[in-house]
Amino acid sequence: MTDWRDQLRVVLVASRNPLNIGAAARAMSNFGFKQLRVVNPYDVAFREARSAVGASAVMAAAQEYQSVGDAVTDCSLVVSTTALGHRGLQHPLRRLEYGGRLLRKHLAEAPAAILFGSEKFGLANDDLSYCNWLMRIPTREEHGSMNLGQSVAVALYELIRNPRAPQAHPKPVRAAKGDQLERLTELLREALEESGYVNPRISESTGQKLRRMVRRESLTSRDADVWLGMFRQVLWKLHNK
Amino acid sequence: MTDWRDQLRVVLVASRNPLNIGAAARAMSNFGFKQLRVVNPYDVAFREARSAVGASAVMAAAQEYQSVGDAVTDCSLVVSTTALGHRGLQHPLRRLEYGGRLLRKHLAEAPAAILFGSEKFGLANDDLSYCNWLMRIPTREEHGSMNLGQSVAVALYELIRNPRAPQAHPKPVRAAKGDQLERLTELLREALEESGYVNPRISESTGQKLRRMVRRESLTSRDADVWLGMFRQVLWKLHNK
Repeated sequence: MTDWRDQLRVVLVASRNPLNIGAAARAMSNFGFKQLRVVNPYDVAFREARSAVGASAVMAAAQEYQSVGDAVTDCSLVVSTTALGHRGLQHPLRRLEYGGRLLRKHLAEAPAAILFGSEKFGLANDDLSYCNWLMRIPTREEHGSMNLGQSVAVALYELIRNPRAPQAHPKPVRAAKGDQLERLTELLREALEESGYVNPRISESTGQKLRRMVRRESLTSRDADVWLGMFRQVLWKLHNK
Repeated sequence: MTDWRDQLRVVLVASRNPLNIGAAARAMSNFGFKQLRVVNPYDVAFREARSAVGASAVMAAAQEYQSVGDAVTDCSLVVSTTALGHRGLQHPLRRLEYGGRLLRKHLAEAPAAILFGSEKFGLANDDLSYCNWLMRIPTREEHGSMNLGQSVAVALYELIRNPRAPQAHPKPVRAAKGDQLERLTELLREALEESGYVNPRISESTGQKLRRMVRRESLTSRDADVWLGMFRQVLWKLHNK
C-alpha cells in the first residue's frame, strides 16, 4: 500500500535562496515526505542546493518544472499557504489546523500539491489560480510573513502530528513503587532525627509531612534507589561519627 | 493581564550559526513570543544575528547568559526538545503534541523555559540536567535531526495552534444562493439547446442533470455572477448569429 505521504507534492515556486530549498527538503525528509517539485528556481540556487554537502535524498530526487500548471497536472487538489495579504482573493481561506485536516483526508485517496511562493514575492495571482483553496499559518498580524523553510516545516508537521499521541506514547520511565517511597520516607526521618532536625516528640506528624513530600516528587524507580543509597550512607555516617 | 506567551523563555544553547539564531527569533516574532535567551553563543554569530538587516524586535531584545542554570533561574518548568538519541536518559520523554499541551498549561500560571541545543552537538548532559522532561518532535527515525530554526518554529506552532480553529474561522466567502444557481442552470440549458448539444425532447431529465452538476460545484456568489454574465453573452451570440 502507498504511504499517504507519497501522495503529497511539495511545490516551491521561484525560490531564490539555496538554503531555503535545502531547508524545505530537510523538513520533508524529517517528516517522511518525498516528492519535491521546484518551479522556475533561480538556476544557481537550485544547483547549489542540490550539490550541498549533506543534501538529502529528497533534494537529490527533486524535479524541476517550467510552470505551476506543469507541476500539478497529476494532482486533484492544489492548496497553498499564504500570509494575510491575500484576503482580497476569492479563494476560501482556512487556518492550517483545519486545512491540514482536509488535505490529509484527500491524500489518503489521491495526490495533492501544496505550493510555497518565493521568499520575496510570495505567489503570483496566476500561480494562485491553480489553487482550490488557501491555508493560513496562524501567525501574528503584525509579523505574518514566515521564513520559507520554517513554513514548510510547520505545514508538514501539522499533517503528520497525531492528536492521539498522548495515549499512544505512555511515559517510558517506571515510577517508584510504594515500598521504595516508604523506605525512603523512613530513612529520611531517621536521618533528620539523628541530625537533630526533627524533634522526636512530634515525629509522627512530621513523618506524615515527610511522606507527603516524598510522594509529591513523582520519583522514578531508579531515582528512588539512588536517593535510598544516599540516605543510607548519610545515616551510616551519622551513626558512626 | 500577562499574555501567557510572555511567560515562555526560548533558550538557545551554544548556537553556532547566526542564520539559525535569526530564524529562531523570526519564528518567535511570527507566533508572538518575546523572550529569547542565548547561552554561550559563538560571539561572532550572536553579534551578526543581532545586527542583521531586518532583525526583529525579539532579536534586539535577546539576552545573553553564561550558563543554562543562569538562563532558567526564574523558570519553574524547564523542558527541551531532543532527537531520538537521548533515550538513555532518565527523563520522561513526551511527544510534542502532548508535551506542548502540558507546557502551555504551565505557562498559563508560571514562567517556563524551552531549551534548544547547538546545531552540531545538541544539548550536553549537564544542560539536560536542568530539564524536568524532554519533548520529541515526531520526526522519522532514519532522519530525526531537525534544523534549529525549523524545530523552534514547529515547537512554537504546537503551542499556539488552536484545535478549535475550524469552528472559530468560518469560510470567509459567501456561497451562491439558490436563485443564482437556478438562473445559471436555466441559462446553461438554454445555451446547450441553442447550440444543439441538448435534444429538446429529453430536455427535462437533462435539466435535472444540469442542476445537480451546477450545485455540485459549490460556487461562490461572486463566481456565480461571473458565470451568469458569461452565459448571457454566449446566449446573446447564439441568438444573434
